[in-house]
Amino acid sequence: MTDAPTARAGRRSRSGGGAARRAERSAVSFETAKFIERNIPLFEVLNEEALEIIEYNAETVLEEIGVNFVNNPGALERWRQAGADVQGERAHIPRGLARQLCKTAPSKFTQFARNPARNVEIGGNSLVFAPVYGPPFVRDVKGGRRYATMADFEKFVKLAYMSKWLHHSGGTVCEPTDVPVNKRHLDMLMAHMTLSDKPFMGSVTEPSRACDSVEMCEILFGRDFVQENTVMTSLININSPLTFDDVMMGALEVYAQNMQACIVSPFIVGGAMAPVSVAGTLTQVLAEVLAGIAYSQLCRPGAPVIFGAFVTSIDMNSGAPTFGTPEASHITYGAGQLARRLNLPFRSSGGFCGSKLPDAQAAYESANSLNMGLLSGVNFMLHSCGWLEGGLVADFEKFVMDADQLGTLHKFAEGVNMDADAQAMGAIREVGPGGHYLGCAHTQSNFKSAFWRTELFDYKPFETWDEEGARDTRVLASERVERMMAQYQQPAMDPGITEALHAYVANKKASMPDAFM
Amino acid sequence: MTDAPTARAGRRSRSGGGAARRAERSAVSFETAKFIERNIPLFEVLNEEALEIIEYNAETVLEEIGVNFVNNPGALERWRQAGADVQGERAHIPRGLARQLCKTAPSKFTQFARNPARNVEIGGNSLVFAPVYGPPFVRDVKGGRRYATMADFEKFVKLAYMSKWLHHSGGTVCEPTDVPVNKRHLDMLMAHMTLSDKPFMGSVTEPSRACDSVEMCEILFGRDFVQENTVMTSLININSPLTFDDVMMGALEVYAQNMQACIVSPFIVGGAMAPVSVAGTLTQVLAEVLAGIAYSQLCRPGAPVIFGAFVTSIDMNSGAPTFGTPEASHITYGAGQLARRLNLPFRSSGGFCGSKLPDAQAAYESANSLNMGLLSGVNFMLHSCGWLEGGLVADFEKFVMDADQLGTLHKFAEGVNMDADAQAMGAIREVGPGGHYLGCAHTQSNFKSAFWRTELFDYKPFETWDEEGARDTRVLASERVERMMAQYQQPAMDPGITEALHAYVANKKASMPDAFM
Repeated sequence: MTDAPTARAGRRSRSGGGAARRAERSAVSFETAKFIERNIPLFEVLNEEALEIIEYNAETVLEEIGVNFVNNPGALERWRQAGADVQGERAHIPRGLARQLCKTAPSKFTQFARNPARNVEIGGNSLVFAPVYGPPFVRDVKGGRRYATMADFEKFVKLAYMSKWLHHSGGTVCEPTDVPVNKRHLDMLMAHMTLSDKPFMGSVTEPSRACDSVEMCEILFGRDFVQENTVMTSLININSPLTFDDVMMGALEVYAQNMQACIVSPFIVGGAMAPVSVAGTLTQVLAEVLAGIAYSQLCRPGAPVIFGAFVTSIDMNSGAPTFGTPEASHITYGAGQLARRLNLPFRSSGGFCGSKLPDAQAAYESANSLNMGLLSGVNFMLHSCGWLEGGLVADFEKFVMDADQLGTLHKFAEGVNMDADAQAMGAIREVGPGGHYLGCAHTQSNFKSAFWRTELFDYKPFETWDEEGARDTRVLASERVERMMAQYQQPAMDPGITEALHAYVANKKASMPDAFM
Repeated sequence: MTDAPTARAGRRSRSGGGAARRAERSAVSFETAKFIERNIPLFEVLNEEALEIIEYNAETVLEEIGVNFVNNPGALERWRQAGADVQGERAHIPRGLARQLCKTAPSKFTQFARNPARNVEIGGNSLVFAPVYGPPFVRDVKGGRRYATMADFEKFVKLAYMSKWLHHSGGTVCEPTDVPVNKRHLDMLMAHMTLSDKPFMGSVTEPSRACDSVEMCEILFGRDFVQENTVMTSLININSPLTFDDVMMGALEVYAQNMQACIVSPFIVGGAMAPVSVAGTLTQVLAEVLAGIAYSQLCRPGAPVIFGAFVTSIDMNSGAPTFGTPEASHITYGAGQLARRLNLPFRSSGGFCGSKLPDAQAAYESANSLNMGLLSGVNFMLHSCGWLEGGLVADFEKFVMDADQLGTLHKFAEGVNMDADAQAMGAIREVGPGGHYLGCAHTQSNFKSAFWRTELFDYKPFETWDEEGARDTRVLASERVERMMAQYQQPAMDPGITEALHAYVANKKASMPDAFM
């Protein structure tokens, strides 16, 4: 799939071609880095023996304990025909069957964006960053913590569009709680499609909303294009332990049958939804992902999928989920190894933290999970920026803080340049003992690109920093958010497509009453 | 050296044996974790070809460009006799000679503490954490940023003594600027020796002060013991590029001849003291460490040493050093590989940051360098807690923040337990699809030790946290510092030794006028 054709979205002309071209010419384009192509080794925490034990145990779980497909007779019928022993809602999957079924899933796929320069490859050596997903609350310095609205949602989409190191617009960046539950997916998709030109995620909260997502993409990309190419990567959570509910599976069925990608993700707070040990949790994660991805291939062999893992540990004193912890790192590193042995793209999360504020706790925990994400071989990193308070809050300042740190991962992933110029023997000879390199020829010709540079953190001398108001990172980030919003300009789009999308959304909204639960 | 005998300090009785025993009985002992014994793989950023290029180039630097030993005719004479081509103050070291000389240095050694339970192994799979070193300023929430005093110094020594995950008391935790320059080493050593029972570092600011350090250790540990065992690990910086000054080399000579360990560390801000490229900087680092460690072995073959690397990058816009950056990570990972190929213990730094406050910037940068330190195979991590503002400030709150995070590295370094209980197949069977693990037998018997737990961060629900004052990490840390200081109790020591140390310091101080420059 990696050689699939370029999406033609934005080039087609339904009406007003001249206006569209003028719109394109006048729009500002914000620089987005290419997704990471890792040029460094991976860190692997499990040895061969440990991996074989976990793989053996996961097959035992599938065969002996089985998995539940709830309220989903069609799924159970598919499993029966594939050779599983189905009893009630439980499918016992014979050893080796799920792994065999997973083989038709591609090891790598392209997700197309309406701007072809923003297409991403998911799998292999690539790493794609997407923002936080799901919080009902937002927070910023000025407004404090509050329920998220559609205006907040749009602001996040704009920030993501302008963030250089972010490759993906994400999905439910926050829950727009001022829009009815049964209609908000329409507004969210509209925002991703029109306020940004980066790739995005579809709705999974109802199978019918997955259908709406596909239909809106057909307007944006063209019907034939969508049927043959992946234009959405959507998040399908498993109700751990070992349960696949009809809502999520219904959405997966829609996406798989329409060639759209799903991240099949156990949702685990270790000690609650999985055993209180790393080896036990990895066993359950693998069993669940094998069953979920096998099922996607029963729906449509060849449908693109991602081996997901959302794993945190639990604070056994308070029962609160904890983030950026060493056990979660063990599990993520191990899950990466298991995914690679299945030859599947791997998703995990970065930017994880439990803190209520974008303070030092948030940053330690987030940096731990961002670094781990890179070294564990993650291909699609959800929650890579903006996540706060265990995922309850999408924080505007934290969004730009994390988004800045993603730049360090890009630079680190390049590995070490060993060419003759980088070896710098001429510079060492030129400077010699006791000299300094600031003015030497090698420094002059390389300094601009030599070192990664933050666009947020403060590197100034203490006195300057103090005179300028002794701002901490949160204040600097708040100012950066305002600066970015002032600079935002909407990417150009064919007015005919915009019009058709608006008409689709208006029709859909008119066809059903508001629902808030 | 790892099988060397236990230090007898604190057991010898010069006077008042009964009082000493009573003092020991009444003292509170604070728990200190054993140094880390890594049970995980290392991350290696350079391949074999890159390593060979760097090693070849470093030898070229030593032979062709050479290194300066400044104001040190004795050192130059040693180099001449060893086979170097000495011209003026420059020693050109023939290819292979320095590497050959390094072979007598031990790959691992024990640093003894006066409490044998606090002895540390340096080298191999071990990782020892020591606090920040060198800042002239201190900072805390209440007092802001100010010049450090001896009272601050003592407070840091007490905090380090009580910090579970910190194995080492360090050296110049901050500069006690209220004590004359030529006398402060005496007070600093006295604080490490009497307020803590963890291992510590000696003075390097004058060869005579290194002698004083050795003599005070002879009082503490016994003269014969010190001559045969390592009781100090001291920091010898190289004046990069390629310059070894007489002060630092004088101190190294004293320590090596007395069997005390030195960290031989290039001090590099990349782009200023080394080329603006990773490969070039690593070449220079290796050349400098080879020359410095070879010289230690010329002073006394078998003297314990550590391959040091203090490397940061530079912000080419402001000229400020930057920390926790991807280039510094490349260099540290590479330096770890080079040290292991020399079969030498490796030192680098964790907790590095450029921020003025213990805020999100500080924590992102510090977490980046702490994680890198663990995975790069560091054996002795200096600056692992308390470092702020590029090393200008030792921050009390940051000290306990970092010290807490060191616990995550301990847990991560244990690796993944794969025994039958950890595989948890019984628990997965017991709970089954749709259940939960909170009450199952496996969770009940494992939850206490299953997950690492912070002693600082907030895991409470939002409402509780809000009612309790919505404290950020810095405020929580400030309260933790106060709580720890209220709990501090001095570790017991033979009163005869205390008396002898006081007499030594009083005599030394009386023998010279105060100097403040």
